[in-house]
Amino acid sequence: MIDSFPSGNIDNKNDKLEILYGIHSVQEALNARQRIFFEIYFVKEKLSPTLQTIEFLAISLKIPVTKVKASFLKSLAKTSRHQGVAARVSLYPFSDISEIINNPKKSEYNNFLLLLDNIQDPHNLGALARTALCAGVEGIVITKDRSAGPTPAACKASAGALEHLPVARVTNMAKFVKEIKKKEFWIIGMGGEARKSVFSIDLSCNIAIIIGGEEKGIRPLVKKECDYLVSIPQLGQIDSLNASAAGAVVMYEALRQRRYS
Amino acid sequence: MIDSFPSGNIDNKNDKLEILYGIHSVQEALNARQRIFFEIYFVKEKLSPTLQTIEFLAISLKIPVTKVKASFLKSLAKTSRHQGVAARVSLYPFSDISEIINNPKKSEYNNFLLLLDNIQDPHNLGALARTALCAGVEGIVITKDRSAGPTPAACKASAGALEHLPVARVTNMAKFVKEIKKKEFWIIGMGGEARKSVFSIDLSCNIAIIIGGEEKGIRPLVKKECDYLVSIPQLGQIDSLNASAAGAVVMYEALRQRRYS
Repeated sequence: MIDSFPSGNIDNKNDKLEILYGIHSVQEALNARQRIFFEIYFVKEKLSPTLQTIEFLAISLKIPVTKVKASFLKSLAKTSRHQGVAARVSLYPFSDISEIINNPKKSEYNNFLLLLDNIQDPHNLGALARTALCAGVEGIVITKDRSAGPTPAACKASAGALEHLPVARVTNMAKFVKEIKKKEFWIIGMGGEARKSVFSIDLSCNIAIIIGGEEKGIRPLVKKECDYLVSIPQLGQIDSLNASAAGAVVMYEALRQRRYS
Repeated sequence: MIDSFPSGNIDNKNDKLEILYGIHSVQEALNARQRIFFEIYFVKEKLSPTLQTIEFLAISLKIPVTKVKASFLKSLAKTSRHQGVAARVSLYPFSDISEIINNPKKSEYNNFLLLLDNIQDPHNLGALARTALCAGVEGIVITKDRSAGPTPAACKASAGALEHLPVARVTNMAKFVKEIKKKEFWIIGMGGEARKSVFSIDLSCNIAIIIGGEEKGIRPLVKKECDYLVSIPQLGQIDSLNASAAGAVVMYEALRQRRYS
């Protein structure tokens, strides 16, 4: 938790900073208080009520606020999808694996993790994180290599959810899965080819759901460690739920079993 | 069903044509045989196996095939996201409302419709249609005004699902809902503020699920006609499942209740 926000010359620290952009992204980063804010930039126009709320919050937290031209925001955010606000902040605050595994229960329900084995599109990471937060997932684990990280684009796609949800990185996903199996997690791998349906297994115990990369799915060494490989039933002439819809179905089936059945 | 594909000079019919683009979009339009194909354009490079499959299919169906520069494809599709293929085709083949309501049952299960009350983002329409086809929805009904239609961008976002799923347009959604209530459909409106959870109601009967627009949700006159207003439970610090994730949860909950419980 950060209660004061440093400012000043930070040109020599640019490698440890990034530019968040988008309303929810900046707002939830402010709410979550996990990052240091160096400066917030608003478009030099009459601000919408939501942007005004962000401005008031920034001022109350003593974060420097600057009004800039839209073209400056665009070059800062490297996209025109900034929605009138950007912020120069410290890098994404990854969690330690130990924090995620040993997370003291926040509720009476069993533990619930989401493991992403080489999801490569930051928009998919963002969309999955957004659903995960809503469905009660306690932490996300991604691979260090060949995975989309919680970049500003992913944070925007997550509507700020990535600021609230612990994300940890592992070098070796198969090894990590082995470790959490010792801690009584059941490992549920999602695979379109699996015969067992996601609706046929118990998701109310301690679970880690694994979703594989967009192209190749869960890698063989990781798949070998799964207790169950399950698929989402698909009717119709094409079978191609996208990663984000498939994730929503399985995470909410887990939530339903835990709290609504 | 169209078994032959006309070709020739179609310059004076441009207002009745559109340009589909993207691999799945073009491939599924070919598979569905609901549109007339006037010409298919491939990028002038070594084609990937999937593009080759589309080319073989086009040739076997006697559709003129032309190899063009990527820049030409881009100007034709008005986007660089063409994935190497575009097609000049007849407009989206809307279904009549009567075809959707009086759809003879294709299975032993009850009827299942999706009503979109002013969804405005073609990507949301596409993503919802993709999930709908997989979850066994038999038809989508949209409003004629203020709704995203099944444009080429929506077709691409649907990964071709819109080519297989009947879509009908109504001028007055509230009036349409009144009509199908007489035909023993239960009307389920999705609303974040509803107290009843989607997991607490019976979705195995004849149902029409209504999803409202991104900004304002279901409009009051339509909402008034709903038998149930339900929400998707949301934990976490932000409550903002996106339309496509929310749609996936409710459509798959219906599928689960119908076939997997």
